Amino acid sequence: MSIPRSTDNDYTREAADQRRAFAEEHTGAQLDHVSRYSFDPSETAGNIENFVGVAQVPLGLAGPVVVHGEHAEGEFYVPMATAEGTLVASYNRGMKLVREAGGVTTTIMDDAMQRAPAFLFANARQARDFGEWLDDHFDPIKAAAEQTTRTGRLRDIEQYSASRILFTRFNYTTGDAAGQNLTGKATAAACAWIVANYEGEIERFLLESNFATDKKSSQVNMLRTRGKRVVAEATIPGALFEDVMRSSSERLFQARQVSNLGGFMSGVNNNGAHSANGITAVFIATGQDVANVAESSAAFVFAELRPNGDYYYSVTIPSLIVATYGGGTGLPTQRECLELLDCYGKGKVHKLAEIVAATVLCGELSLGSAIVAEEWVEAHDLLGRNRP
Amino acid sequence: MSIPRSTDNDYTREAADQRRAFAEEHTGAQLDHVSRYSFDPSETAGNIENFVGVAQVPLGLAGPVVVHGEHAEGEFYVPMATAEGTLVASYNRGMKLVREAGGVTTTIMDDAMQRAPAFLFANARQARDFGEWLDDHFDPIKAAAEQTTRTGRLRDIEQYSASRILFTRFNYTTGDAAGQNLTGKATAAACAWIVANYEGEIERFLLESNFATDKKSSQVNMLRTRGKRVVAEATIPGALFEDVMRSSSERLFQARQVSNLGGFMSGVNNNGAHSANGITAVFIATGQDVANVAESSAAFVFAELRPNGDYYYSVTIPSLIVATYGGGTGLPTQRECLELLDCYGKGKVHKLAEIVAATVLCGELSLGSAIVAEEWVEAHDLLGRNRP
Amino acid sequence: MSIPRSTDNDYTREAADQRRAFAEEHTGAQLDHVSRYSFDPSETAGNIENFVGVAQVPLGLAGPVVVHGEHAEGEFYVPMATAEGTLVASYNRGMKLVREAGGVTTTIMDDAMQRAPAFLFANARQARDFGEWLDDHFDPIKAAAEQTTRTGRLRDIEQYSASRILFTRFNYTTGDAAGQNLTGKATAAACAWIVANYEGEIERFLLESNFATDKKSSQVNMLRTRGKRVVAEATIPGALFEDVMRSSSERLFQARQVSNLGGFMSGVNNNGAHSANGITAVFIATGQDVANVAESSAAFVFAELRPNGDYYYSVTIPSLIVATYGGGTGLPTQRECLELLDCYGKGKVHKLAEIVAATVLCGELSLGSAIVAEEWVEAHDLLGRNRP
Amino acid sequence: MSIPRSTDNDYTREAADQRRAFAEEHTGAQLDHVSRYSFDPSETAGNIENFVGVAQVPLGLAGPVVVHGEHAEGEFYVPMATAEGTLVASYNRGMKLVREAGGVTTTIMDDAMQRAPAFLFANARQARDFGEWLDDHFDPIKAAAEQTTRTGRLRDIEQYSASRILFTRFNYTTGDAAGQNLTGKATAAACAWIVANYEGEIERFLLESNFATDKKSSQVNMLRTRGKRVVAEATIPGALFEDVMRSSSERLFQARQVSNLGGFMSGVNNNGAHSANGITAVFIATGQDVANVAESSAAFVFAELRPNGDYYYSVTIPSLIVATYGGGTGLPTQRECLELLDCYGKGKVHKLAEIVAATVLCGELSLGSAIVAEEWVEAHDLLGRNRP
Repeated sequence: MSIPRSTDNDYTREAADQRRAFAEEHTGAQLDHVSRYSFDPSETAGNIENFVGVAQVPLGLAGPVVVHGEHAEGEFYVPMATAEGTLVASYNRGMKLVREAGGVTTTIMDDAMQRAPAFLFANARQARDFGEWLDDHFDPIKAAAEQTTRTGRLRDIEQYSASRILFTRFNYTTGDAAGQNLTGKATAAACAWIVANYEGEIERFLLESNFATDKKSSQVNMLRTRGKRVVAEATIPGALFEDVMRSSSERLFQARQVSNLGGFMSGVNNNGAHSANGITAVFIATGQDVANVAESSAAFVFAELRPNGDYYYSVTIPSLIVATYGGGTGLPTQRECLELLDCYGKGKVHKLAEIVAATVLCGELSLGSAIVAEEWVEAHDLLGRNRP
Repeated sequence: MSIPRSTDNDYTREAADQRRAFAEEHTGAQLDHVSRYSFDPSETAGNIENFVGVAQVPLGLAGPVVVHGEHAEGEFYVPMATAEGTLVASYNRGMKLVREAGGVTTTIMDDAMQRAPAFLFANARQARDFGEWLDDHFDPIKAAAEQTTRTGRLRDIEQYSASRILFTRFNYTTGDAAGQNLTGKATAAACAWIVANYEGEIERFLLESNFATDKKSSQVNMLRTRGKRVVAEATIPGALFEDVMRSSSERLFQARQVSNLGGFMSGVNNNGAHSANGITAVFIATGQDVANVAESSAAFVFAELRPNGDYYYSVTIPSLIVATYGGGTGLPTQRECLELLDCYGKGKVHKLAEIVAATVLCGELSLGSAIVAEEWVEAHDLLGRNRP
Repeated sequence: MSIPRSTDNDYTREAADQRRAFAEEHTGAQLDHVSRYSFDPSETAGNIENFVGVAQVPLGLAGPVVVHGEHAEGEFYVPMATAEGTLVASYNRGMKLVREAGGVTTTIMDDAMQRAPAFLFANARQARDFGEWLDDHFDPIKAAAEQTTRTGRLRDIEQYSASRILFTRFNYTTGDAAGQNLTGKATAAACAWIVANYEGEIERFLLESNFATDKKSSQVNMLRTRGKRVVAEATIPGALFEDVMRSSSERLFQARQVSNLGGFMSGVNNNGAHSANGITAVFIATGQDVANVAESSAAFVFAELRPNGDYYYSVTIPSLIVATYGGGTGLPTQRECLELLDCYGKGKVHKLAEIVAATVLCGELSLGSAIVAEEWVEAHDLLGRNRP
Repeated sequence: MSIPRSTDNDYTREAADQRRAFAEEHTGAQLDHVSRYSFDPSETAGNIENFVGVAQVPLGLAGPVVVHGEHAEGEFYVPMATAEGTLVASYNRGMKLVREAGGVTTTIMDDAMQRAPAFLFANARQARDFGEWLDDHFDPIKAAAEQTTRTGRLRDIEQYSASRILFTRFNYTTGDAAGQNLTGKATAAACAWIVANYEGEIERFLLESNFATDKKSSQVNMLRTRGKRVVAEATIPGALFEDVMRSSSERLFQARQVSNLGGFMSGVNNNGAHSANGITAVFIATGQDVANVAESSAAFVFAELRPNGDYYYSVTIPSLIVATYGGGTGLPTQRECLELLDCYGKGKVHKLAEIVAATVLCGELSLGSAIVAEEWVEAHDLLGRNRP
């Protein structure tokens, strides 16, 4: 039985209620809370189909996190939408620690959103020839791509060859949008130009072939950036760990060595602790494409125990995909959460990326300390080994 | 400036409003929609700290998806919470295709949630000796772990050694809970027993060291399962692709070959298209721990073009982390969405896992076809190449 | 034009000379040195086909390396066959350093050679059922496998499922042979028993499907062992690095942190420096299957800077494939080189594995120090920056 | 006890004999065959230290392999040094199959040898600034690098950032040398120029930090090339598989699908069968740096079953490291083997790369067919299932 749709206007309370009634009738379930949204369904046009209501995800505040970025500077109260108890508290605790240490320095290292068409040829030699042609015709390809977009800019086209296939990555900057749609459209136009103008024979092309790895984690994105590549850094005095975290920088650093090895062996995409937790909570709150947690959750942690006991800690997020414009950012609660960070709209996306990265760093130190302290306090305590 | 908390009862409208006022005052933002939740804040205790309101995420219905599982059988209308336009429509389209082909068969291959303590010794030889001891003492360790939980069962302990460290994975079944907390507590108890009873010298242990890779994607979890390992399979008549998808099984299969190669080269954790989209949308709707998209988004696609033009398609999700009990599953809208699938509460978790996997499969075929057809229709059409 | 073969006896000087003449005639090349081997070609039966002569690979001696293993104990002079200048000198230098530090402790953590058949079924559910049957019938399967071999023992069968396929790893101990042939034959026999006795329907099986990854490097072998899993450990006083290596443990340790991060990002199978150099040179000298360098070159380095400046350093080789019996070990020069290490024949394979691992560790410290010192000495020196 | 060295001239029979006597005395072993080399030890200066003799590795001839390359064209008899029985026969069989199918087409897609210095800064922002400076100063850096070499050319410098570190890859073409030493020296000179001229503060640099992954396998090299990136392609009529291989293209293609999935799950660096076997045997025979098997053994196989039953098969070797000049290529037997292929000396390295790739392809088809046929013939035959 097909879900009812209104051919007239599907983004109304009536249409939503009709679907709700249909679902309730077919399943016996009640969709009471789901249908208690605070806005007009017309606001969701372009964001959802078959709208029936909303998921209400609890929202907590953490902070302030102190950020010293090039785009974000000062104290921020971070909205986090989650149903996982202790998550907000844990980030909050980390933000306190880092605040006392002077805050987080954030830097955006790179910015690239891509679509990755693959081109097939009769044989490898033709693929190689096409690659050379592609290099030689970057300017008109760029022009063709950019005709479809006001904000997107084609930066470069990477090439990766195998067999009779040339895999490419069309890398764009995309303004304040995340840019997946923009790059898709621009790259389709670029490919159309290519197909029309290439004098050789392209057997087939595919607009996407697992080299942009949208909604998936990959080594190529960890190496070459997808979205923003952001580094968050902080140096925490050793004494603070003992005061605030019941831990020590020495123990944290040794645990980090073990985690580095464990992560290397297990083939993990993140040698840190749980950046996905903070990223997901902020993504839901601020209307990001939450499925991008798949790639945004990759991270590189690099830490150093300084001779004086200070702990230098950094997190590099190589594929942080954020937007302050477009997608879900304009939805009612989502926009409010962005405004809470002064990150709604144009010219704000780097600021948001920095705040997210700073938040992540605080969460890493918090959970990292908890793991160390748990052992120290709980295990040893429970066992009574260090008691008289 | 610290976020206000009520020492009395922090899960009240008053406490939430106080925080809201604080945030509005410090940021100038309005949190109007955020505070229009339909339930009493007390319902969020255990799910959030510093509660200020809710993120309202648009919810659409897709389906029905036809599932032939061992736990889910029949038609399901799938609630998907997302702000990404076309997502629901795309899954819906895939569900239609697969429905016409007779539905999705789903199978749960394995079930294991883990905590992964690492044990450090003076040298490798002691680590190896400890590993043997661990094998020999599985029964009392299991008993110690299970004393802390009603539903968790310790299945086995895997060992991975490097240097003077023994990394372990304590694998549990966890009933209808996702089980991260349960396994953490049980493993801490197991470790306490181990530390108290091991006659040798454990230099240090860490309750977690990147071998369970919670909230991260890893090869070890793709190999050894985290949460549920689910396979969804369907065989689609070739004609259906042409009728419903303006595509063909031959073209899809060739595109799959290219994607397989692309994914192998790019080092991706999923050779499919976009399982994270469907998983995330269902996770938000049904109160899952959305950060687990990091690991749940890994997938193996295996497809075959049959001699008669049929397309056998399967998705294996090796680390699908779902719950029908605990965590966010009991929150008002989340519970309603689970009830829509008849998946709320005890004894339902495998059913939910099967529905999610079936949903994912439909989305893969839909986007896969779109990529192929986009080339076919748009590119060729726009270019006018196949016009007279 | 076909290469000449003698149907009578192909392993004679005459047959070899006939091929040599043929090759010289067809190519114009001279094969003078190639044909100056010191033994009768009959000794190569079972090792080579179309024998024409030998590659003479220069052989150098390094050592002594001081090993404290469970199978190797004392000083060993290590034969290394290579054409890379400085390789022997570098290992020699590392052996000297470690000797002065008291030697290398070696431990064999695990021992498993495998063949990895894949079984295909009509659907995933049948694959899962078969997996259960496999567990239940381990004893007769083991009996069937072991009937084909005197020394091979089937330890266990691992299962990895995806789609309608069950991938397995049949893990064996193989005495003093490397065991690839032995495990192939035994597993074929086991599969024959399985196919004959499984009451369900196996659609197809393949004796190998990229899950043993013979002659290739893989995460699964790094996790689960192929051949011997060996750890070599040493603790080097800080002062020794300065005296012997013109370096320091602090600088080495910082460089290690950078290398760990670099390796994690680059997706390398070895976070150390160049274990393949030592392994290859010993493999050629001692008649190992040199193509196994592909998997034997994987390694995990774990190092610690101790508070007193000592440097704890360990290398874990998870897939070291060695033999002291069978294959090329009995060839004239190869056997002599094994005898040099008292490692020829039965009961010696663990000893050889330990010596190789110890050798690797020495080479790591040597090159690691050179990289650090090169910067320190050459770069700074050349630049004259630290001159008046 | 130190191995004897002659301070006068260490590359003489006397020096070698003295070491031999020393080794025999200390170990009780005889080094008779080892010392029966056919050339003067002075020829090994620059190739080995502590020379005592040679490893005599059996050498077989395979072929002719028919190659249609841009550098190699025609029939080649390939010298393979190995002690693994059946290896030469298997390659030989594959060469026959492919010969009957018209030969192998080979294409060199890319050519880059690298050294990968890492630069450390006080913070990430300085690392990013340095990266921009590096781009702006490519010309003088290139000049500084190239002053140290006649044949090396610095193509480009890739950048990969994490934390406060900039990892780089200095990519060179290196003429007919493999180029590891050349690039090391050139990059050291480039770094010296950089350190002397960069106005900012470089805290430290390391000439190598696991981003060139010399003698190790890595995703970055599989993506970005190390040495030569070579594709070998052939299209084999279906009937030939049945005639020559007792197999079929359909069965091979299905087996390939399973292998692709197996390899993706197992995290292997090569979804093919055993390219390391052929590469290693040719490397030993022709004086290559055999330890480079670690990276040269990575490969991408891409195959297609054509509608008419033909089997298109390709192997891409992304990191094939070969030389026809320098290193071990001038040693007596090694040079003869290169001459057998008309690949000794200047201007021959691409030809050798093509022959190696063609050889690999033949071996893949041979072993792939054997696996398929083994099942078909042996398993079914042994079991008698298809007998009356």
